[in-house]
Amino acid sequence: MSYDLAKIRADFPILSREVNGKPLVYLDNGASAQKPQVVIDAITQAYSMEYANVHRGLHYLSNLATEHYEAVRGKIARFLGAAHEDEIIFTSGSTEGINLVSYGWAAPHLKAGDEILVSVLEHHANIVPWHFLRERQGVVLKWVEPEADGSLPAEKVLAAITPKTKLIAITQMSNVTGTLVDVAAIGKGTSVPIMVDGSQAAVHMPIDVSSMGVDFYVITGHKLYGPSGSGAIWISRERQAEMRPFLGGGDMIRTVTRDSVDYAAPPLKFEAGTPGIVNQIGLGAALDYLTGLGMENVAAHEKGLRDYARDQLRALNWLQVQGDSPDKGAIFSMTMQGAHAHDISTILDKKGIAVRAGTHCAMPLLEFFGVTASARASFGLYNTKAEVDALIDGLKFCRELFA
Amino acid sequence: MSYDLAKIRADFPILSREVNGKPLVYLDNGASAQKPQVVIDAITQAYSMEYANVHRGLHYLSNLATEHYEAVRGKIARFLGAAHEDEIIFTSGSTEGINLVSYGWAAPHLKAGDEILVSVLEHHANIVPWHFLRERQGVVLKWVEPEADGSLPAEKVLAAITPKTKLIAITQMSNVTGTLVDVAAIGKGTSVPIMVDGSQAAVHMPIDVSSMGVDFYVITGHKLYGPSGSGAIWISRERQAEMRPFLGGGDMIRTVTRDSVDYAAPPLKFEAGTPGIVNQIGLGAALDYLTGLGMENVAAHEKGLRDYARDQLRALNWLQVQGDSPDKGAIFSMTMQGAHAHDISTILDKKGIAVRAGTHCAMPLLEFFGVTASARASFGLYNTKAEVDALIDGLKFCRELFA
Repeated sequence: MSYDLAKIRADFPILSREVNGKPLVYLDNGASAQKPQVVIDAITQAYSMEYANVHRGLHYLSNLATEHYEAVRGKIARFLGAAHEDEIIFTSGSTEGINLVSYGWAAPHLKAGDEILVSVLEHHANIVPWHFLRERQGVVLKWVEPEADGSLPAEKVLAAITPKTKLIAITQMSNVTGTLVDVAAIGKGTSVPIMVDGSQAAVHMPIDVSSMGVDFYVITGHKLYGPSGSGAIWISRERQAEMRPFLGGGDMIRTVTRDSVDYAAPPLKFEAGTPGIVNQIGLGAALDYLTGLGMENVAAHEKGLRDYARDQLRALNWLQVQGDSPDKGAIFSMTMQGAHAHDISTILDKKGIAVRAGTHCAMPLLEFFGVTASARASFGLYNTKAEVDALIDGLKFCRELFA
Repeated sequence: MSYDLAKIRADFPILSREVNGKPLVYLDNGASAQKPQVVIDAITQAYSMEYANVHRGLHYLSNLATEHYEAVRGKIARFLGAAHEDEIIFTSGSTEGINLVSYGWAAPHLKAGDEILVSVLEHHANIVPWHFLRERQGVVLKWVEPEADGSLPAEKVLAAITPKTKLIAITQMSNVTGTLVDVAAIGKGTSVPIMVDGSQAAVHMPIDVSSMGVDFYVITGHKLYGPSGSGAIWISRERQAEMRPFLGGGDMIRTVTRDSVDYAAPPLKFEAGTPGIVNQIGLGAALDYLTGLGMENVAAHEKGLRDYARDQLRALNWLQVQGDSPDKGAIFSMTMQGAHAHDISTILDKKGIAVRAGTHCAMPLLEFFGVTASARASFGLYNTKAEVDALIDGLKFCRELFA
């Protein structure tokens, strides 16, 4: 299949706008991705003509909304390679998903002294919920460091497992360095339950949770070109059976009396209250869009951008790029002697180029690299080599200003 | 101010559609409300031209999205009469809000034998989180029943308080009977912390949390004519200071290291991860819309609908209406001898009339009334007396079919 970049870019209305009088060069996809018109249209159609609450109605609009909403569960299952639709639990995003694992599975299973193995690559979303367990019940966090180039070999993770390790919490792709972690190799190497943060990886490559040998896999819709407040977690049936409910409310119960409560079967057991109905319908449209492009084609396109950007960035000997593992996504964290990351971002912004500056919700990783903040350029399916050139020119301009 | 119902109805695109060949008569507002065009437009505009992640960017679009998103905090504060904007915490809806109170305040404060006073009027969202505390840490749920007519006098709630009562969990308006509870009178009568479920009340009348003498007040955006996955909770500064964080992740921390985590100040402390950015922006548009109409005008209009419907329903001596307290919203739960609630809903649906059938996430209340399911008609700001007539005609048709 050909990858028609001009056509793809035309699918995203915001890409035609200007920022500070310059065409927008959006390189903040790691924080959140822009939305194609089909997603916006799905939301508009749902609210304008097909809206009601789901599950609990018997009238036409409620049945229609339920049908559209529940169809997304199957779309997510197929997108992730899940064996069963009921392994997909809707969430408001990765943060809720990981907290579900922490509160619903880990909190009742882990006792003082038990260990959670966490990689230094993790986003705070895959750190803070485990710190809660440390603070509240004496669970021990054990850290596994990447290599100097930001890569994290599966063997290194496996070697850090001890008899006390009860959970491995690991990202499949770093949101700072783009490092790809071979989570399937980790899954094959241990029977310790594994929680994979797929927030970045699932956006950039085909995913097949069924062959990974892992237990939990979270995605977040807003990074997947979908709406705010959409997302899901895949949980194997085996782990679901071990979990207690997390959020309490309507829809996740079978019966409620004054003295007792009887919970619904999964996945509803883990989905309390009125869900993000239209958000998830919009996520369904986003996944249809990605599937239409083909995730292997998206991956190939972004690999081209990564290689093109990497070569040019390497040539800038006054620029430090944090992490340069051979197998990585098109995400680059950068620092420049004499220029604060915030200044870099602000100056690039004047040229219409959106990059993020700060700690990228990954303070332990920045500390590992010995930096307090960096500027990050993160590419998506609609970015172009011309936009890489614009970034390089912008960085050179920063260098001139601050040198 | 005049209340121009025709103009208001024209603001809601879905109200012009037909269902089963008949004009839609949407009487399922208690489950979720329809959306005015200004809300849909706000969402479209945000995704089409003004989207990026909030808080952590320094580029133009991120700053713009942050500005629009954070402005909603002030809109919610003013809508609820909060004294301070930082008392408003964004949530995905009432369920997340009440679980925040349960996990963040009640779980660390209540021990075995401590009592939570719950009214039998409550929605499961304001029951199940307290059952969790019963199951997990031996907290005792004490129930206060309404009167036979569904009303719940403040004195009855106050009389049920014991020295062991550590929290009162109460709705301001029942989603089944429409019963209004004078939560301010309860607030004035006790120093026990009070968690008010405003999911229904805030949709139908002006709210002023500052004068209520309560501690927690939740609202949900999708019932307030706003988007899926929007909402907020008001928490007094005093209670916020007593709370531990609930969801862990990005944005709610100041620093994260391998050994420690230092939390941000409220409200961010209670808002983990990328929030429902565009959902909340849409909620802001919905609140602007409601404020434009004037909540006192909305309340007056719905009072007219309530009285008109109540008079006509009372004349149907073959229909049982659960609860008939003098002070109630325009919500009617109904059963008919010989006809299952689901049949009533299905038959009304054929005439384009959307009512809900089932337990309305309030099983203890239905049990109190001695019914296992009911059909519920719940009115909103755009409903008309002609729609009341259509409901009455539809009910008479059901009666003919099943008598």
